Amino acid sequence: TSCPPTGGPGAAAEEEVRRLCQGFMAPPVSGPQELWRRRRDMRGRMELLIMETQAEVCRALAALDRGAAFAVNTWERKEGGGGISCVLQDGHIFEKAGVNVSVVFGNLSAEAVQQMKSRKTLKDKDGKLPFCAMGVSSVIHPKNPHVPTVHFNYRYFEIEEADGTKQWWFGGGTDLTPTYLNKEDAVHFHKTLKEACDKHDPKLYPKYKKWCDDYFYIKHRGERRGIGGIFFDDLDSPSKEEVFQFVQSCAKAIVPCYIPIVKKHCHDPFTPEEKLWQQLRRGRYVEFNLVYDRGTKFGLATPGSRIESILMSLPLTARWEYMHTPPENSREAEILEVLRNPKDWVH
Amino acid sequence: TSCPPTGGPGAAAEEEVRRLCQGFMAPPVSGPQELWRRRRDMRGRMELLIMETQAEVCRALAALDRGAAFAVNTWERKEGGGGISCVLQDGHIFEKAGVNVSVVFGNLSAEAVQQMKSRKTLKDKDGKLPFCAMGVSSVIHPKNPHVPTVHFNYRYFEIEEADGTKQWWFGGGTDLTPTYLNKEDAVHFHKTLKEACDKHDPKLYPKYKKWCDDYFYIKHRGERRGIGGIFFDDLDSPSKEEVFQFVQSCAKAIVPCYIPIVKKHCHDPFTPEEKLWQQLRRGRYVEFNLVYDRGTKFGLATPGSRIESILMSLPLTARWEYMHTPPENSREAEILEVLRNPKDWVH
Repeated sequence: TSCPPTGGPGAAAEEEVRRLCQGFMAPPVSGPQELWRRRRDMRGRMELLIMETQAEVCRALAALDRGAAFAVNTWERKEGGGGISCVLQDGHIFEKAGVNVSVVFGNLSAEAVQQMKSRKTLKDKDGKLPFCAMGVSSVIHPKNPHVPTVHFNYRYFEIEEADGTKQWWFGGGTDLTPTYLNKEDAVHFHKTLKEACDKHDPKLYPKYKKWCDDYFYIKHRGERRGIGGIFFDDLDSPSKEEVFQFVQSCAKAIVPCYIPIVKKHCHDPFTPEEKLWQQLRRGRYVEFNLVYDRGTKFGLATPGSRIESILMSLPLTARWEYMHTPPENSREAEILEVLRNPKDWVH
Repeated sequence: TSCPPTGGPGAAAEEEVRRLCQGFMAPPVSGPQELWRRRRDMRGRMELLIMETQAEVCRALAALDRGAAFAVNTWERKEGGGGISCVLQDGHIFEKAGVNVSVVFGNLSAEAVQQMKSRKTLKDKDGKLPFCAMGVSSVIHPKNPHVPTVHFNYRYFEIEEADGTKQWWFGGGTDLTPTYLNKEDAVHFHKTLKEACDKHDPKLYPKYKKWCDDYFYIKHRGERRGIGGIFFDDLDSPSKEEVFQFVQSCAKAIVPCYIPIVKKHCHDPFTPEEKLWQQLRRGRYVEFNLVYDRGTKFGLATPGSRIESILMSLPLTARWEYMHTPPENSREAEILEVLRNPKDWVH
């Protein structure tokens, strides 16, 4: 089975673990000793990566928001595992910024087995499938309507089949949701992601850019949630090592693709009308997350999941006006056009 | 097949039709002449009832809101039928009040047939099932946090099977969502609904009160959306006439169960903290409607449906705070307790 705690480290190892974990937002779910023991396994390496990513993003955001402090909550899941939620709410620059790590394991629920079998061939043992899932996920909603919302999620999944073979895969992505279109920012964001992808394979960015546009589609509106980025799932080739290296590159690209955009615009002046348009777009964000997002739907339907961490992705405030239509040739119509017909930002 | 326009009335009938329709918010979907022709059929009688209900509720709301005017939009569905949406947005008393009538017909989509067959035995003809569905539905969100939100919906459904037999049923309900608990209001609301039910059968109110508490359950929160009311579906006995009479009594009870509560509280003073709690409860309203509500989900998934009329039910503004918990013994905790453990308001 997956992720059970075993063994104990020596005194020297314990010292190194302590140093490593000092930079994290909270002690890792698996415990510093277990994490150290697993530092060469993918589970250990991925947990280290998601903990580092959480700390790196939170530090960058807090530094920008005049040193505002994140509220850190650690939680346990009685069926196995737990998580660390870091939330900055109603700061100077950020309306709501949540960065969440979770490491859960146990047996997949019958419902989850059913869902997973529609995508994969799995041999269960009396309906039981031991699994381990871990990831870092985040949504950052700034106050200023000229600073876009960003979302990212990087995750690793392991399932042990009846005959002992292990299936594994990675998933993830980073995408941007601006209230107003700024072409320079769009190009910077996509270019930074493309560079992270290109280091591994030039075919990756175009494929995952399209997947992102397809995934974040609000069907009933005929609009995407934002101007995209990258998105991928079920990634299990060419090798575990290579996929991990790719995911690591994507995770390292989060701060450089987003933080410069925040810095550039966080003091831009804005009008009440621009704030109102931001609130209407926030409403669309809520629609996507509650109606379509697979992760949110899975979370809400899974017994024992932590609702506050799942719904952390919702904005602090949102608005729905009946039949709101921006005037032609307005900046509001400009972003709508791009949400309806995604563009290529990097050639 | 259902609801096709046929025939024409005489001159005298036309005069009466004109008078009848003058009180409506817009010309009826089926056209005044067709409606007159069908005045003894259930389809005609129900369309008259939903048009009258729409007009009655809109008039009562507009009169309260210093004569504020409803925006009236009529829309057509290319597959058959259409509707009339009446919306009052950002009025003096009402933040957003929508009263919608729709009369649609044609053939059920393959998806709808599949869904319906999970509930009913239906004999289709080469996968085709002619249907006619009509109803009035409304959500009224007031500004003052001491005035509750109300929702109601009354609908009639007909399906023609392959051998020509017609299945029909009614559904509906009225329910209240207060921000703060006012026991007197809760009792008045439920008592008025109970009286409407009791005229037909004393067993109805307890049954439909429980159905309402069960239906408006936000599972991931462990809370009901509000303090309930009545809810029923698939009602096809004891007879079409008797069920219609019952639905008519419910529809006539909307104004007396709600309007006195609005009048009583619409000038109550309130604090910014009370407004904030209202906004958080509005967030829950959005969660229920987008995640669980059958009508909304069905609407969003149905090609050709009018999104603006479906999402009219969402509040103008809503709020989500991470880990918001009201203090013990507060008025916020008082309503939460009732939402977690529904009470009997009438004995």
